[in-house]
Amino acid sequence: MTDPWATSEIAGPVVTGADLHLEVRGPGLRAGLMDALREAVRTGRLAPGTRLPSSRSLAGDLGIARNTVADAYAELVAEGWLTAQQGSGTRVAPRAAPRRPAPPSRAPAGRRTPVGGADPASAGRPLAAPAGGPAPAPAGRRPGRVRPGPVHTLHPGTPDLGSFPRADWLKAARRALSAAPNEAFGYGDPLGRIELRTVLAEYLARARGVYAHPGRIVICSGFVHGLMLMGRVLRERRVHEVAVESYGLDVHWNLLTEAGLRTPALPLDEHGTRTDRLGREGAVLITPAHQFPIGGALPPRRRAAAVDWARGAGGLILEDDYDGEFRYDRQPVGALQGLDPERVVYLGTSSKSLTPGLRLAWMVLPEDLVPEVLAAKGAVDWASSALDQLTLAEFISSGAYDRHVRGMRLRYRRRRDQLVAALAERAPDVRVSGIAAGLHAVLELPPGTEQSVVQAAAWQGLALQGLDRFRHPSVRRGRDALVVGYGTPTDSAWAGALDALCRVLP
Amino acid sequence: MTDPWATSEIAGPVVTGADLHLEVRGPGLRAGLMDALREAVRTGRLAPGTRLPSSRSLAGDLGIARNTVADAYAELVAEGWLTAQQGSGTRVAPRAAPRRPAPPSRAPAGRRTPVGGADPASAGRPLAAPAGGPAPAPAGRRPGRVRPGPVHTLHPGTPDLGSFPRADWLKAARRALSAAPNEAFGYGDPLGRIELRTVLAEYLARARGVYAHPGRIVICSGFVHGLMLMGRVLRERRVHEVAVESYGLDVHWNLLTEAGLRTPALPLDEHGTRTDRLGREGAVLITPAHQFPIGGALPPRRRAAAVDWARGAGGLILEDDYDGEFRYDRQPVGALQGLDPERVVYLGTSSKSLTPGLRLAWMVLPEDLVPEVLAAKGAVDWASSALDQLTLAEFISSGAYDRHVRGMRLRYRRRRDQLVAALAERAPDVRVSGIAAGLHAVLELPPGTEQSVVQAAAWQGLALQGLDRFRHPSVRRGRDALVVGYGTPTDSAWAGALDALCRVLP
Repeated sequence: MTDPWATSEIAGPVVTGADLHLEVRGPGLRAGLMDALREAVRTGRLAPGTRLPSSRSLAGDLGIARNTVADAYAELVAEGWLTAQQGSGTRVAPRAAPRRPAPPSRAPAGRRTPVGGADPASAGRPLAAPAGGPAPAPAGRRPGRVRPGPVHTLHPGTPDLGSFPRADWLKAARRALSAAPNEAFGYGDPLGRIELRTVLAEYLARARGVYAHPGRIVICSGFVHGLMLMGRVLRERRVHEVAVESYGLDVHWNLLTEAGLRTPALPLDEHGTRTDRLGREGAVLITPAHQFPIGGALPPRRRAAAVDWARGAGGLILEDDYDGEFRYDRQPVGALQGLDPERVVYLGTSSKSLTPGLRLAWMVLPEDLVPEVLAAKGAVDWASSALDQLTLAEFISSGAYDRHVRGMRLRYRRRRDQLVAALAERAPDVRVSGIAAGLHAVLELPPGTEQSVVQAAAWQGLALQGLDRFRHPSVRRGRDALVVGYGTPTDSAWAGALDALCRVLP
Repeated sequence: MTDPWATSEIAGPVVTGADLHLEVRGPGLRAGLMDALREAVRTGRLAPGTRLPSSRSLAGDLGIARNTVADAYAELVAEGWLTAQQGSGTRVAPRAAPRRPAPPSRAPAGRRTPVGGADPASAGRPLAAPAGGPAPAPAGRRPGRVRPGPVHTLHPGTPDLGSFPRADWLKAARRALSAAPNEAFGYGDPLGRIELRTVLAEYLARARGVYAHPGRIVICSGFVHGLMLMGRVLRERRVHEVAVESYGLDVHWNLLTEAGLRTPALPLDEHGTRTDRLGREGAVLITPAHQFPIGGALPPRRRAAAVDWARGAGGLILEDDYDGEFRYDRQPVGALQGLDPERVVYLGTSSKSLTPGLRLAWMVLPEDLVPEVLAAKGAVDWASSALDQLTLAEFISSGAYDRHVRGMRLRYRRRRDQLVAALAERAPDVRVSGIAAGLHAVLELPPGTEQSVVQAAAWQGLALQGLDRFRHPSVRRGRDALVVGYGTPTDSAWAGALDALCRVLP
């Protein structure tokens, strides 16, 4: 096995930042620095055992934040390129240089010019982060394997991570921690902290029309955790099928499949998901406020059809309200749950409105489901940090959450308007839809071009996802389109990402 | 269904704090206030619809923190005793008074005198929080059902929750949040944050002799989450049996059973768990540094026997190092993992050293297990808050963690010494053991007295757990003893708890 710790005794040469001749600039500084260091090791410019400059010194030489360097070092240690041990500094790992011929070199991720050596196969890889989805696992990373780091990402499903309200969050954390009773630091109530459930009940009723009280709210670690719990509950209830939508996330379908449930897809027409076609399924998973990824709101008669079915057939509706806070041109569509709180499981999350890094989401349950969900959750609340729950409760009750959502709504709307304007000018043949709400839009492409546009974009350092990636396996291929997450770039990266998008469109 | 929100229009009487004639004092203020309010509703002193004083005003009347009152109100709303709606204040719920005859009244939990009406059946209930275990789920709470609130708890498995270093933690959070790269707020690496894994690798090597590097550390939401993942991995590897110790936690055994694994118990003798008896099991779960709950360290030849077995039979050792930081009279026993990092899964946690409320633990894995554990964890890291992970990384690397552990070690040792001294003076027939380390001790009782001592204690408001509660179902009843968690009370409650303990001992 590779043992990066075994090298502390190597007395290799020491280099300074200037010796490295790195070219690091533009967005994605850390990724760029990492690529540059990998490149230097791969080509032998940095020999095994070489001691690298301290992060402080290299940061000074490069004129970037020390933290960026320290992060890059740490990640490269994790990947096995470098080793670190107290007193001995950071060194190039002994076996970091590949024995096989080096792969084609490529530019640091910080550059924007197309490069011949980038790996186009990665462009369409299913791991590319979906909404509610994962970053690719780094477990398989080994020296010698090169993962392309895109310059710009317009994947849907992630909010602008640069907008996390750090100062306001810290203020809330300070107040929450000062006020917390001692028992808050103990093993938690599996429902979640009462403080958070109490403010959520008020917030969800006000902002989303959800019928909620704290006793029927269960805090979970993200939507996926909630869906996992529901899968277990449905299986215990001897449900065999959960209907899903024609387009959605395979992560969600797979979770239900793993729980032993079949996931037939409901048809989709120009009005949205055909909830009037629900039959003997035991439950249905839908995104009524904003279909993911198509983008429309489920019309009233289709909402009513879902509820009628649930009542008549004894079925359950799982309402995925992932971005209900973000509406632009009209009144928000209230949650379906209000129509029949005993037939609808409402699932909301802080992942789009605040940050996926919190891992905090919530379910509002029909009353008779509460004991079953708690049983599925297990007797121990191993799920959610009490400290974060208390902080989020304070963040919401102080009004900071509303302010943040209002601010982000303006910001995302501005981006959406810029996207629409740029397309009208530079790609007039591309039709945009799904723009009334949320953090993404659907760009319809000429037939047969979806895959080539996604690949061409990847070669130019722009990560895009085609609509086909979200298609249920049982559904026939539909229109060629892109699902563009305009919420994802940071403010400083947005203009460049939009420009890159326009350049790859037909 | 009960609908506590439906009462906002009730124009009931308004009372002031003085009208309530509550007697609330001593430790457990909030629990005492809740009991007093339940009592007042139950006896009809507070009629349905009655508007309660604001939390500020009641807190003023009672001379306690407003937060305590607000918490008590919120919890009683969750339980269905009270209702709350903006603009209408907090009121007694319409159906809060029982229809059946009221259960025997009992004193508020804040009092220390024995009360006839307390429910002795609850004393031995298996839900009583074990180490790594749950607080009882509140799902079953309904008006009319009375749950006894003990004045003192000496259950093992919880640290002194009053000692959580709030100010230092906030400092670390401020630094961590300021320095965090934007991507930290996105969907996380399923291994956990690289910053935390990097500092843990250094810390575990230094403090516990663990062979660790960041690439083989996986962050999880508590020991139980890690064990759940390992259960899944072992099942996938077609393992059928995981040996466990004669005494331990049923929560852990049940988790393995639910994963489809049998859990035969290894015999125990005066030297500890008989790892020399390991056979065709595929894995073994042990607490080598400090047997839970008996208290000894696994002697060197038994450690060697475990490793020899693992090598010879291709087995895995799951090392539960739940309180390895707390040793008093001798050098710490290093982790077993150092003997063979490819055969031992090391599981550590912040739950005893810091707080269970964080839900942060870590596994150090044999290298070939990393991909399997990540697969079990699922593609999505729905487990752990990135913010808390970054804060803990900063907390450790700044030295605050070491300082906290040192301080707590002194404090717990002082308590241990006080326990031993008090027993020597007031209960000289009780033999104490397992006191070299950890947060609990075993008090041997005269044969046949364990259950009656636990029950007598419960009647006096002291929650204790007998040794038998931790016995594996296949093991014959052993000695009568108590497992006393002297880490659990806050500093201010400790003297009272110790006194209460001495009073119930034979």
